[in-house]
Amino acid sequence: MKFYISTIPFGSTNKAPIEAISKEGHSFEINSLGRKITEEELIKKLHDIDVLVAGTEPITKKVLESAKNLKIISRVGIGIDNIDLDQAKKQNIKIFNTPEGPSMAVAQYTLGLMLSMTRHIHLSARELSKGVWDKKMGHGFESLSFGLIGFGRIGKKVSRLLKAFNPKEILFYDPFDKGEDEVSAKKVDFDFLLQKADIVSLHLPLESNTKGLISSKEIKKMKKNAIIINTSRGGIIDEKDLHKALSNKMIGGAALDVFENEPYEGPLSTLDNCLLTPHSAPMTTTSRENMEYTAVKQAIDQLKRL
Amino acid sequence: MKFYISTIPFGSTNKAPIEAISKEGHSFEINSLGRKITEEELIKKLHDIDVLVAGTEPITKKVLESAKNLKIISRVGIGIDNIDLDQAKKQNIKIFNTPEGPSMAVAQYTLGLMLSMTRHIHLSARELSKGVWDKKMGHGFESLSFGLIGFGRIGKKVSRLLKAFNPKEILFYDPFDKGEDEVSAKKVDFDFLLQKADIVSLHLPLESNTKGLISSKEIKKMKKNAIIINTSRGGIIDEKDLHKALSNKMIGGAALDVFENEPYEGPLSTLDNCLLTPHSAPMTTTSRENMEYTAVKQAIDQLKRL
Repeated sequence: MKFYISTIPFGSTNKAPIEAISKEGHSFEINSLGRKITEEELIKKLHDIDVLVAGTEPITKKVLESAKNLKIISRVGIGIDNIDLDQAKKQNIKIFNTPEGPSMAVAQYTLGLMLSMTRHIHLSARELSKGVWDKKMGHGFESLSFGLIGFGRIGKKVSRLLKAFNPKEILFYDPFDKGEDEVSAKKVDFDFLLQKADIVSLHLPLESNTKGLISSKEIKKMKKNAIIINTSRGGIIDEKDLHKALSNKMIGGAALDVFENEPYEGPLSTLDNCLLTPHSAPMTTTSRENMEYTAVKQAIDQLKRL
Repeated sequence: MKFYISTIPFGSTNKAPIEAISKEGHSFEINSLGRKITEEELIKKLHDIDVLVAGTEPITKKVLESAKNLKIISRVGIGIDNIDLDQAKKQNIKIFNTPEGPSMAVAQYTLGLMLSMTRHIHLSARELSKGVWDKKMGHGFESLSFGLIGFGRIGKKVSRLLKAFNPKEILFYDPFDKGEDEVSAKKVDFDFLLQKADIVSLHLPLESNTKGLISSKEIKKMKKNAIIINTSRGGIIDEKDLHKALSNKMIGGAALDVFENEPYEGPLSTLDNCLLTPHSAPMTTTSRENMEYTAVKQAIDQLKRL
């Protein structure tokens, strides 16, 4: 069977996933573009492919319709919002993802963004690299209220990491009604969270009912110094509304690792109160190795069942 | 009595320390230079001062000899390496510091630097602010060995924060033989720590036997990808040796919040594998407010005992 691996880097720190494919007698090709593959390019690549080991590229209806042999899509990662699920079902394509793989990496990265924003680490580093010595006053977690939106696998992990820092409080709201009060966090209404949290952090999948969940209306309810953190999916925040709010200092700042369109090329990058990173939260060697191997293994096992 | 407050900002987020001075009928003046006061300037300021509420400026023999009325130096912070202790003793000047004040702020900041370095947050943010989208592979704490040098108040707090991230291991070495094995960390020899740790973090006072503790000889024992973190005192690392090691990629990188001479103006700021911040680890509102108030309160109470 033929594998196409669209997500990169792949097999760069550990060859086990690649060896697993070869060992079973399957062939494979890895995206050699050095960037995310486009819809048009994907259509050309998939014409005789049986298994797609996928990233977040657009696996649209058009892509799937042209992929006549495709039997399996195995996502290296959690979100499957880039796949036309209805069309995949029509073509009887099995879909897998690796929900456990990146969750610790994303949770740890989220803490990193929270610490950079509240202590101005990235700004101080940028200034001092230009010779500017300007001590900035920050806020310790003990004086901050954290509001987690989404309390599944990753939200819970963030909450448990935060707890070690003895924060003022951790609130959570989950639109899918996941999670119950626990030692580390208290379940509250959406509006209550928006009004109380100093740090609002998103841990949700992108679906029809989470798209644009944070727009002007919600931002207006937030504290004047509130900081928004997003390591989940870009479309959950309305980027235009966020840009307006940050430009007008309606809130304190934002740290975004995910965007409506990636690679991101928009105007948020010009704002000093906005920390942007290139969808790197899941990018640890352990997390990648686990996800790559799991994605490949699930596909191989499924091929045996066909 | 006359107070001179050399450390800034002071009383900026909470007026309680200033009010406490006035309430007792004492007068005060705050450093209005907007920067660290020099030795010469300090000599001029202290000629009729009774109490110095101090930062990290050079309180040398010369400064003390000219401060004929000085009875108390109360440090807003922990380190007293900037004070000529022998001379102070000769003049019967009482010295106070605020050891509890900044320890949580420093420990949290240390975690922020560790996360920025291992996940490249500051570099990604700098690149994406210029429109460059380059995902970098990082390392999760679960795959890293942490080596804490110094296991007093702050070292222990860092260890307990780290523990929540489920690191591969936490080792510690304390040149003053502080600390015992605990759930979070294992006591080891200096050389063993240098050879095993992926992240080496310093949590020591600057004294004669810690000055230059990390020089070429110690750096050579470290792993090729080791990262050094310093939020304690600059003089503990030999900056010339560190610059050489980082330039030659003998180690992975360094994140420094403290320097031999502050404000820092040296060549480390030109290196991409070096994250520099302006002695900001203690700078949280809670920590500053606690330290400022404690420093003032200790001085006022001591004045009553004179």
